[in-house]
Amino acid sequence: MALIVQKFGGTSVGSTERIRNVARRVAKWKAEGHDVVVVPSAMSGETNRLIALAKEIQEHPDQRELDVVASTGEQVTIGLLAMALIECGVKAKSYTGAQVRVVTDSAFTKARIQSIDEAKLRADFANGIVPVVAGFQGVDANGNITTLGRGGSDTSAVALAAALKADECQIYTDVDGVYTTDPRIVPEARRLTKITFEEMLEMASLGSKVLQIRSVEFAGKYKVPLRVLSSLTDPMIPVKEEAQSGTLITYEEEDKMEQAIISGIAFSRDEAKITVMGVPDRPGIAYAILGPIADANIDVDVIIQNASADGITDFSFTVHRNDYAKSMEIAKKVQAHIGAKDIVGDNKVCKVSIVGVGMRSHVGIASQMFRTLAEEGINIQMISTSEIKISVVVDEKYMELAVRVLHKAFNLEMEPF
Amino acid sequence: MALIVQKFGGTSVGSTERIRNVARRVAKWKAEGHDVVVVPSAMSGETNRLIALAKEIQEHPDQRELDVVASTGEQVTIGLLAMALIECGVKAKSYTGAQVRVVTDSAFTKARIQSIDEAKLRADFANGIVPVVAGFQGVDANGNITTLGRGGSDTSAVALAAALKADECQIYTDVDGVYTTDPRIVPEARRLTKITFEEMLEMASLGSKVLQIRSVEFAGKYKVPLRVLSSLTDPMIPVKEEAQSGTLITYEEEDKMEQAIISGIAFSRDEAKITVMGVPDRPGIAYAILGPIADANIDVDVIIQNASADGITDFSFTVHRNDYAKSMEIAKKVQAHIGAKDIVGDNKVCKVSIVGVGMRSHVGIASQMFRTLAEEGINIQMISTSEIKISVVVDEKYMELAVRVLHKAFNLEMEPF
Repeated sequence: MALIVQKFGGTSVGSTERIRNVARRVAKWKAEGHDVVVVPSAMSGETNRLIALAKEIQEHPDQRELDVVASTGEQVTIGLLAMALIECGVKAKSYTGAQVRVVTDSAFTKARIQSIDEAKLRADFANGIVPVVAGFQGVDANGNITTLGRGGSDTSAVALAAALKADECQIYTDVDGVYTTDPRIVPEARRLTKITFEEMLEMASLGSKVLQIRSVEFAGKYKVPLRVLSSLTDPMIPVKEEAQSGTLITYEEEDKMEQAIISGIAFSRDEAKITVMGVPDRPGIAYAILGPIADANIDVDVIIQNASADGITDFSFTVHRNDYAKSMEIAKKVQAHIGAKDIVGDNKVCKVSIVGVGMRSHVGIASQMFRTLAEEGINIQMISTSEIKISVVVDEKYMELAVRVLHKAFNLEMEPF
Repeated sequence: MALIVQKFGGTSVGSTERIRNVARRVAKWKAEGHDVVVVPSAMSGETNRLIALAKEIQEHPDQRELDVVASTGEQVTIGLLAMALIECGVKAKSYTGAQVRVVTDSAFTKARIQSIDEAKLRADFANGIVPVVAGFQGVDANGNITTLGRGGSDTSAVALAAALKADECQIYTDVDGVYTTDPRIVPEARRLTKITFEEMLEMASLGSKVLQIRSVEFAGKYKVPLRVLSSLTDPMIPVKEEAQSGTLITYEEEDKMEQAIISGIAFSRDEAKITVMGVPDRPGIAYAILGPIADANIDVDVIIQNASADGITDFSFTVHRNDYAKSMEIAKKVQAHIGAKDIVGDNKVCKVSIVGVGMRSHVGIASQMFRTLAEEGINIQMISTSEIKISVVVDEKYMELAVRVLHKAFNLEMEPF
């Protein structure tokens, strides 16, 4: 008998037929004696429709009022899903964020959860009721409706799981788990049965967009076991089987974990690289360049600065390809001011990363990665490393090749021993 | 400087363009220094769409959950309308029923308002803010979302006006007021500038469906002056002109009122008449016939019983035409039990009524009505009267003729002197 929070994304509740399937799946878990809280997203397309309506009225909608409008998408789903559960013979009751009291700050459209009142949910468990809680939304201290931003339903589910000290938070989605890399590039890519929060964060931020980053951070912070699993399977597959499916994201790092050194290979297309050449190597140079970039709301990813020769250095950074033109323009504006010789850019690059907690305790991983790429004649333009990740920036034409050869070099197609 | 509650129906907020027009209209009133509360309905078609979704899940949707789903229609409109006001440079803030605290009983889908907390609205007035309050919805003592039933936004507006002691509650709709009768039947029909609550109730219940009955009752009870006016005029017509438009429904009955004896002619098609013939005239007969009809959830309208001759009487009543077959069946079942000679019915009848507070103090109104009909050879099948109304049931083929000749006979096309 466990306490489980089950979150279903927009596609999983995209029609009344699919909502009925979700209800059957939930009813099955309830029938085995588990306490279940269900957190649905808005029906797919609904949030976009509501935001489009708002933008017809105001180009930049008032943020408080936008949340009033956008939060209705999930409110519709909770009502429909509660009905579907009742129709299955399960006692169920819907709650908006305000009704549970999912209290957030007042940062409309990107609010952060501050506390969750679990009293009503506990009372429901005692009465055999399945609470259906609207994802994505909350209420601030003054009773204003707030939303958590895109993908916020994942965060709602994890926060509820943390507040209730749930045994597991299950995120049902249209993929069946987290893979060693994108199977569209490497057909041998293997589903991971387990991965650590840290690895998941590196994988997600690098392009494997299965879960909202913030929900993974949240789950890691509160040690909520998180499982990504498919909502496209037969709703009536046995609970025992479903409980083992997907990928478990966990904080455990001991023997029980897979012993792989590398867990996966992430990649990011649409990168662009800008190099400021021949700049005097003195304090404040990095800020002089990146300050104006940040002021323009451009995210900078990899940043490297080569060792200085004769007090002159090269400074490179990457941005999203969409921000390339603007970044070049800004860099050229500061060029004279900082005394740089030249600004050169390349918007045909990509980033490939190997991720794994195992590399902490294993030497030679970086050199194995570089040798593998060198053997294929792939030139590395930039290198960036963290404790559990090594990223390289290469010409975009090599992206698939780099991912494939690295996947093979680290034996990711095979189950770890 | 007045305090005005303005209610806009589903057609008036049926598109973002129309919502912008509503905002311009409200802004115009605000600009002249009035305190305004706006109560919009859901965008036209939206409530039906939401109920249809619910019915795809459950043939008879759970009532609590249906209210959770249905109430989102108005929540979308309040957010959009608040944005449109802000875009016009007017400070505005939306409120759901729960946020204001429009407290109702727990009769989901047909809840009744018990109290309204006016504190937040008063604070908004003090700060020059226009509150935009969701119609149709409230919250029960346990925090459950409730709705007031179809047309409930009118009731919300009147209840808010009563709580705030507003100077006027303005119901913007797609007609420009209440007419002496349906202009499609009598082209000379005249818009009434004033009408009493009682007359309005008789007109509305007889088929002139401009306002929800309950809202008129509510307005009468709390003496809230109610104005029906058009939302299809140019939003920028001067406030002075708009304030005099439409029809004012008021409790004042003194000299200030129009001195007409008859205010209007209402009618109802789709009536059916059933006569129980030759029934022994003894106590309990009416109940023996109408009890089973009521048990079948059939509304009975006109009921008459002729004076008894030799202890034998005829008993007639009318029902909606849709209920005719079932009512005949029930009547025939009880025929033997009550010892009636025959049951005869006619599902090709209609009801025509003249309404006016003036008839209280004028004799001869009924006879003038009957003479007018007789002169046209229209046979009266049933007669029913109240303090301010006389209704007759006639063959349906005479309906338009009866309305036209009565309209002329009582000089309704002319302004009262």
